Amino acid sequence: MSSPPSFTIEAATDALHAMRAARPLVQNITNYVAMTISANALLAVGASPAMVHASEEVDDFVAISNALVINIGTLSPTWIEGMQRAAKRAVSLGKPWVLDPVGCGATKFRTDFAVEMSRAGPSIIRGNASEIMSLAGAAGAGGKGVDSTASSDAALEAGKALARASGAVVAITGETDYVTDGTSVVAITGGSPLMPLSTALGCALSATVAAFAAVRPPFEAAVAALAVYGAAGAAAATRVTGPGHLPAELCDALYVVDADMIARYATIRVVEEVNVG
Amino acid sequence: MSSPPSFTIEAATDALHAMRAARPLVQNITNYVAMTISANALLAVGASPAMVHASEEVDDFVAISNALVINIGTLSPTWIEGMQRAAKRAVSLGKPWVLDPVGCGATKFRTDFAVEMSRAGPSIIRGNASEIMSLAGAAGAGGKGVDSTASSDAALEAGKALARASGAVVAITGETDYVTDGTSVVAITGGSPLMPLSTALGCALSATVAAFAAVRPPFEAAVAALAVYGAAGAAAATRVTGPGHLPAELCDALYVVDADMIARYATIRVVEEVNVG
Amino acid sequence: MSSPPSFTIEAATDALHAMRAARPLVQNITNYVAMTISANALLAVGASPAMVHASEEVDDFVAISNALVINIGTLSPTWIEGMQRAAKRAVSLGKPWVLDPVGCGATKFRTDFAVEMSRAGPSIIRGNASEIMSLAGAAGAGGKGVDSTASSDAALEAGKALARASGAVVAITGETDYVTDGTSVVAITGGSPLMPLSTALGCALSATVAAFAAVRPPFEAAVAALAVYGAAGAAAATRVTGPGHLPAELCDALYVVDADMIARYATIRVVEEVNVG
Repeated sequence: MSSPPSFTIEAATDALHAMRAARPLVQNITNYVAMTISANALLAVGASPAMVHASEEVDDFVAISNALVINIGTLSPTWIEGMQRAAKRAVSLGKPWVLDPVGCGATKFRTDFAVEMSRAGPSIIRGNASEIMSLAGAAGAGGKGVDSTASSDAALEAGKALARASGAVVAITGETDYVTDGTSVVAITGGSPLMPLSTALGCALSATVAAFAAVRPPFEAAVAALAVYGAAGAAAATRVTGPGHLPAELCDALYVVDADMIARYATIRVVEEVNVG
Repeated sequence: MSSPPSFTIEAATDALHAMRAARPLVQNITNYVAMTISANALLAVGASPAMVHASEEVDDFVAISNALVINIGTLSPTWIEGMQRAAKRAVSLGKPWVLDPVGCGATKFRTDFAVEMSRAGPSIIRGNASEIMSLAGAAGAGGKGVDSTASSDAALEAGKALARASGAVVAITGETDYVTDGTSVVAITGGSPLMPLSTALGCALSATVAAFAAVRPPFEAAVAALAVYGAAGAAAATRVTGPGHLPAELCDALYVVDADMIARYATIRVVEEVNVG
Repeated sequence: MSSPPSFTIEAATDALHAMRAARPLVQNITNYVAMTISANALLAVGASPAMVHASEEVDDFVAISNALVINIGTLSPTWIEGMQRAAKRAVSLGKPWVLDPVGCGATKFRTDFAVEMSRAGPSIIRGNASEIMSLAGAAGAGGKGVDSTASSDAALEAGKALARASGAVVAITGETDYVTDGTSVVAITGGSPLMPLSTALGCALSATVAAFAAVRPPFEAAVAALAVYGAAGAAAATRVTGPGHLPAELCDALYVVDADMIARYATIRVVEEVNVG
């Protein structure tokens, strides 16, 4: 019998070391705004990013990747085809993939596609409170619908329902982050109020989650990635006076993040009993 | 009878405060190069950016946006469809939209589409001297044709003609910026010679103009946005020795720009009598 | 009889001055991740970038450009058409163009297209060791096939074969850079181990090579550009503690790079006899 997952700073640090040792190739099918910061965050933390989206080559590329992130930020029909095909390929090859349902709830086109992808076997879904609530509601999972002022606390029940309906681990990020598999819940703190003022840092987090999913099961990967990224973000925020230099400082922090930085700037707390054996 | 528009540092500051209080959702259909800095500039100054371009969802998204910017920088046929549809929707819903005719004059494809969009009811057209002269000429508005060495002064007559022909307020940016509705002209100074050496800062300015257009009529919005952005750019330039860190410093300046910074780094001057009642 | 090409720091400096004096318009058909840093590097070093890719306007735009770079990073069918047409137009007008075969070897789609473009008359092909070895092998030029751990030394023979097969000068970048026309070889040092940890700096180098190709023959252009960029990168690396601020520092260094910086941070060495007359 495997030991139960451990949700601690030590476990997150171990996952970081394992990820850096593996230097996973992370395929990003992501939005135009998020590409540069996603690639830079992955490189800085120790993974190897690739931006490959054309349906003509995703089958081949997923096969050589260690993890995949699909982010629907700047969605268009030609990209949808590549996303669908990449997700299918990842599932068939048993590769972990992360769904970032950017802007779910804003338009029917976007919400419908987010629902479709949530049913395509993602390992992890990461979004903010509004996106997770909207996706849970639209997917018929029992969520409460869109609320643009939703906190991650308010979205927790929706996230649990979405996790049960999709089979994915759900990560809801905000002032406090929550990760849930539908029954167990882990809360992570870190980050900075400046982070939402620099574009696509949430998208780059989803890419980082994918890197960790290459070396850990989804629940542990998401918790570790959120703690590592949150710690780096909080450390970076101490070195800036506004959002302008935050992406650069975040990458510098991801480049050096270690046990001390994680312990100093992040917390991990099991909110509800973990019953994964 | 409404009071005449006031083109002063105080009015620009008031517009900034109103914009921040409203936190307008600004939809960007912009070029790939401009996306990240446009989003970051909007977030820093206090607006809420979204990058949404697919024709499948622009009708829905324009409906929830407070302003729209259409920038033709990296133009292609699939994007044209979304731009046409978004502009039409914005006009029908009475939402302000800004046209940035990037590279107008460089190719027939680009010039023709810029002309088409200038006739689709933009609230404001913002470009450099060459773009405005080219667009005015191509639109049959009486401009003087392309001149790659054109200063914004030289383009002023073309800009006035373009404003009369299109019904839009025209903002011509350069060493001195001019805003005109075809009869009145306001001149704004600010910025730095380093700004043209960092890509897409003009595009991010157009996005900022859209944010102000969500809370002020087009003429006043353009003047206020140019003063605020120009002041932030000039302040940012004092903190760098080259163009490399300018985008980050610009965002930090936009994050804190206030009456003092605007008064210190920008000027607003009515050049020709304002006869808007 | 023209004098033989000179591969020295002085010649590189002269090329830099000539390029800045000409301020060449460099058309970039490049990947989404590379666009911003490519534009910023070109602006900083003294060239004028434009990002134009639509097949509807590339014929017109190549005609007004001084050099072209085609980078296959985020490849898709609609972009392929513009790339094919732009390359054909550049060749017919005698304009220099640079091929950056990003990710060649990773998928059949990508490798096939890289081979096709290598046969479309590029002036210069710039890639890392793996890309050059893969392209040489796939093009039947006698390379050794893909090796993801390949050093630029190991790829030198493949690069020479590729140069002979394609007629292009081949630049292989890594810890030591090599430039070859198939018989002669010049080695350049510079740069920093941090550079591969910031995304798309190799792509921005290819754009810089194109700028130099506007004012010098391909072999001399590639050597000069690699020395200038490598020196700026090495100088920039002395000012950072991680990869985060490297793009900004690189641009600041490119903005001021001169004979002293090149001499201090780069070396140029003729490895095999230069027999170009």
